[in-house]
Amino acid sequence: MRNYIDNNKERFMKELFELLRIPSISSDKAHKGDMTRCAEKLTEMLISAGADSAKVFPTKGHPVVFGEKKFSSDAPTVLVYGHYDVQPVDPIHLWKSDPFEPEIRDGAIYGRGANDDKGQLFMHLKAFEYLVREKKLRHNIKFLFEGEEEIGSDSLAEWAEAHKEMLSCDIMLVSDTTMISEKVPSINCGMRGITYMEVTVKGPNKDLHSGHYGGAVANPINMLCKMIDSLIDDKGHITVKGFYDDVVELSREDRDLLGKAPFDMDEYKKFLDIDDVRGEDGYTTLERTGIRPCLDVNGIWGGFIGDGSKTVIPSEAHAKISMRLVPNQECGKIAKLFADHFKSIAPAGVRVDVKEVHGGNGFLIPISSPAYKAASRAISEVYGIDPVPSRGGGSIAILADLQHILGADPLLMGFGLERDTIHSPNESYLLSQLFGGMESIALFYKYF
Amino acid sequence: MRNYIDNNKERFMKELFELLRIPSISSDKAHKGDMTRCAEKLTEMLISAGADSAKVFPTKGHPVVFGEKKFSSDAPTVLVYGHYDVQPVDPIHLWKSDPFEPEIRDGAIYGRGANDDKGQLFMHLKAFEYLVREKKLRHNIKFLFEGEEEIGSDSLAEWAEAHKEMLSCDIMLVSDTTMISEKVPSINCGMRGITYMEVTVKGPNKDLHSGHYGGAVANPINMLCKMIDSLIDDKGHITVKGFYDDVVELSREDRDLLGKAPFDMDEYKKFLDIDDVRGEDGYTTLERTGIRPCLDVNGIWGGFIGDGSKTVIPSEAHAKISMRLVPNQECGKIAKLFADHFKSIAPAGVRVDVKEVHGGNGFLIPISSPAYKAASRAISEVYGIDPVPSRGGGSIAILADLQHILGADPLLMGFGLERDTIHSPNESYLLSQLFGGMESIALFYKYF
Repeated sequence: MRNYIDNNKERFMKELFELLRIPSISSDKAHKGDMTRCAEKLTEMLISAGADSAKVFPTKGHPVVFGEKKFSSDAPTVLVYGHYDVQPVDPIHLWKSDPFEPEIRDGAIYGRGANDDKGQLFMHLKAFEYLVREKKLRHNIKFLFEGEEEIGSDSLAEWAEAHKEMLSCDIMLVSDTTMISEKVPSINCGMRGITYMEVTVKGPNKDLHSGHYGGAVANPINMLCKMIDSLIDDKGHITVKGFYDDVVELSREDRDLLGKAPFDMDEYKKFLDIDDVRGEDGYTTLERTGIRPCLDVNGIWGGFIGDGSKTVIPSEAHAKISMRLVPNQECGKIAKLFADHFKSIAPAGVRVDVKEVHGGNGFLIPISSPAYKAASRAISEVYGIDPVPSRGGGSIAILADLQHILGADPLLMGFGLERDTIHSPNESYLLSQLFGGMESIALFYKYF
Repeated sequence: MRNYIDNNKERFMKELFELLRIPSISSDKAHKGDMTRCAEKLTEMLISAGADSAKVFPTKGHPVVFGEKKFSSDAPTVLVYGHYDVQPVDPIHLWKSDPFEPEIRDGAIYGRGANDDKGQLFMHLKAFEYLVREKKLRHNIKFLFEGEEEIGSDSLAEWAEAHKEMLSCDIMLVSDTTMISEKVPSINCGMRGITYMEVTVKGPNKDLHSGHYGGAVANPINMLCKMIDSLIDDKGHITVKGFYDDVVELSREDRDLLGKAPFDMDEYKKFLDIDDVRGEDGYTTLERTGIRPCLDVNGIWGGFIGDGSKTVIPSEAHAKISMRLVPNQECGKIAKLFADHFKSIAPAGVRVDVKEVHGGNGFLIPISSPAYKAASRAISEVYGIDPVPSRGGGSIAILADLQHILGADPLLMGFGLERDTIHSPNESYLLSQLFGGMESIALFYKYF
C-alpha cells in the first residue's frame, strides 16, 4: 500500500480536494443541493475505485450512499461506515483559508471535512481501490455513507431497518475518531452518547426598556443564566434529577487500565491555552471525557447582540444545551429528565420551553474480538508500537443503533488528532495520518 | 392651542412623518448619513416654525442642532432639549409595520421614534410655532437637539462646555419620559443614571468539539452564566463590592410621598403577561424602578446560535450588562467597581475582558421651583387633574452633565405611556398624548 500511495499521491489529492470543495453542511437548508451533489460524487468514486455497484438512496432527510463489492459468499463481510456531511463553518473570520477551497500547509490539509469525515472515509476508498486493483481483496466490502451524522443521523436508523438485508455484515469499520497522538496510536473501544436540547426562557410579552422596568421584572437572560448555572454543582455534578441513575461506575481495575493511556497535563493546557482544567471531582481529565457524562452549553443568545448598546430587557433568551452520556444511559430518557428538571427550576416571572434537538446512545466494543486484534496488529505494523485501547468522548449516535439493527459490532479505527480541530475553524488532517490510515486499513484486511 | 392643532393637524402629521422616515439609528455606523440628514431636517423645521436662526454643529460624534428665538433680554430663557437619534429596530420581524414608514392605527402613530424622542420633541416645535405665529411668545426659547442620546451622549458634554454661553438658560425643558397613565398625569422629578458594560469570557484558544473536551474544560458560556448569576443574590441585592456605598436611603416620609402614585399590580402583570414580578427585597415595584439601582443583562451571545445543532465548546462568550444608578452614585466609579469585581470572580480556566460602553449619572429636581409649578398647572388644566411627582427609572445621562455645565435645572414634562413600548418593536405614540402634550407645553409658557 505504501508504494501504491507513492505512485498515486497526486491523483489522491485531486480526488479528495474535489470532495472537500462541496459545502455539504447538513444543518443548513441552503446546502440541500450540495448534499445530493456530494452523495452522487461518492457513488462515482466508489465505482471508479472498483465497487460492483453504488447508488444514492433517498431518505426522509439527506440521502444515503451505498456501494459494495462481493468477493465470495464464504468470506466475511465488512461494512465501512462514514459520513459525507460536515459542520457549519462559523465563525468564518477565524479561518486562515477558505473552508471549502482546501489547501496543504505544513504537511496538513486544511478545509472543512479534511478530517471529519471526508478525509477519513477517503482512506477507505483508496485502501479498497488498492485491494481491488492489486487483486488482494479477500472480503466482501460494503460502504455506507450518510449525510446526517453532524445533525443526529435522524433518518438513517429507519432507513437501515428497511435495508437490513442489504447492509448485513460481520463487523462495521469506522474511521471517524481520533488517536491519542501520532506517537501513541489508539483504538477507540467506546463512545459517549448525546442528548441535545434547546431551551427558551420567556419573560414579558415584549422587549422592555431596561430603565423603566429594570429591577422590577425577571429578566429572561438573567434567569436563563441562573438556571444554567444551577445545572452543575460545585463538585462538577449534574443536578438534573435522576441523571446518574443508569451510569455504571467502572471498577478500579478498569479505571487503572484506561489510565495507562499517556496524558501530559501541561501539554494539554498549553495546547488549549488555559490555566486550569475543570470538571467532576474525583476523576482525571481522560476519565472526565471518556467514562463520565457531562453537560455543556453549546450556544446562547438573547437581547441586543449588535455593536454598541441597547438598553433592553428582552422578552426571551435561548440556549442550546447538550449532555454527553456514557453507555447504559438512554438518550431519550435523559431528554425527558432534563426537560422535566429544567421546567421545574424556572423562577417565578418566566416560563420555559424545552425541546429535544437530537440524541443517540453510547456504546462499548469488546477488545478481545478478531476484528479488534486485526486492527491492533495493522496499526502496530504501521506505527511501530502497539495501539492502546481508549474511550472516546465524542458521540457517533447512529453506531449504537446500527449495532442493534445489524447485530454487528463497530470497530473504530480513527486517525484524527486533537490538533485537527474538527468542528472548529481551520479543521485539518495531517498527510502522514491520511496515508498511515490508508496503510493501516489495507493491513487490517490482511489480518482480519 | 387646541384650535391651532385642529386647524393644522394634517400638516403636523405630514411634517412629523417626514421626520420619522429618516432612519437615524445612532448606534449603527451604516446610518451616519441619515444622522446628518435628520439634523438638517430639524434646522429647516425650526426656521419654518419661527426660529431666528438654526444650525447644525459638528461634534466628535453625531451633529448637534441648535436654534433660538430671542424675545427680550429681560425675559426668562428656556432651553428645550431633545434627541433625534433612535434605537435600533431589531427584532425586525416583530414589527407589524415598517419602523421607518410610520402609520396611524387605533389612534396612535406606529414607527421607530414615534415617541422617543422625535414625537416628543415635535410637540415643542409646534407649541413654539403656535406661540410665534399667534404672537403669544413671552420667553426667549432655545432648542438643543442631539444625535447620541441612545448611545450615551458621548460628544454633547464637551460640546456644551465649549458653547455654554450660547446655551445659557434659566431652565431646561425636556420631553423624553413617560406619565404614569393618561388618567394619572405625572411629572418626573428624578431619573436614574446608568453604567453600561460589555464583558467577554475567554476559555480555550479555539472552539472545541464538545465530545472530545466536554466535562474536562471550563466552558466559557457556562462560566459566563455562573458569573452573571452571582451578580445578584437571593434577596435581589447586587453583589458588586462597594456598589451600594453611595446610595442614599430615602426617608420613610419620602417613600410614603412617592408611594402615593397609583399602581395596579394586576394590571402591571397583565400588561407584561407575567405571573410575578421580581426584584430587591423590601421595596415596592415603583421603588425598585424609581429609587433603587439595578443590574440587567441586555444581551448575551456565544457558541452556535443558528438553526439546528453544533456540538461546540466555544472559545468565547459575551454579554452586555448595564446597571441603573440612583442619584449620588457616580457612573465612572461604578464602572470601575464592576470591572474589578467581574474580573475577581472569573473561575480558573477562563480569562475575562471588561469594557465600559457608556455611562451617565442620575439626578433629582426640586418640585418647589416656579418651573415645576407652571408645568403642574398647565398639565392640570389639560388633563383635568393635578399631576403627581414621580421618579423615572430610565436614564437621560446627559441631563446631569448639562445641569452641571449650565447651572440650570431640567424640567421633565414627558407625555409617553408604558403602552408605547419605546426601544421595542411597534413603538407608538398616542395622538391624544401628542396633542395633549402640545397643549400642556403651550400653557407651561403661559404660566412660567
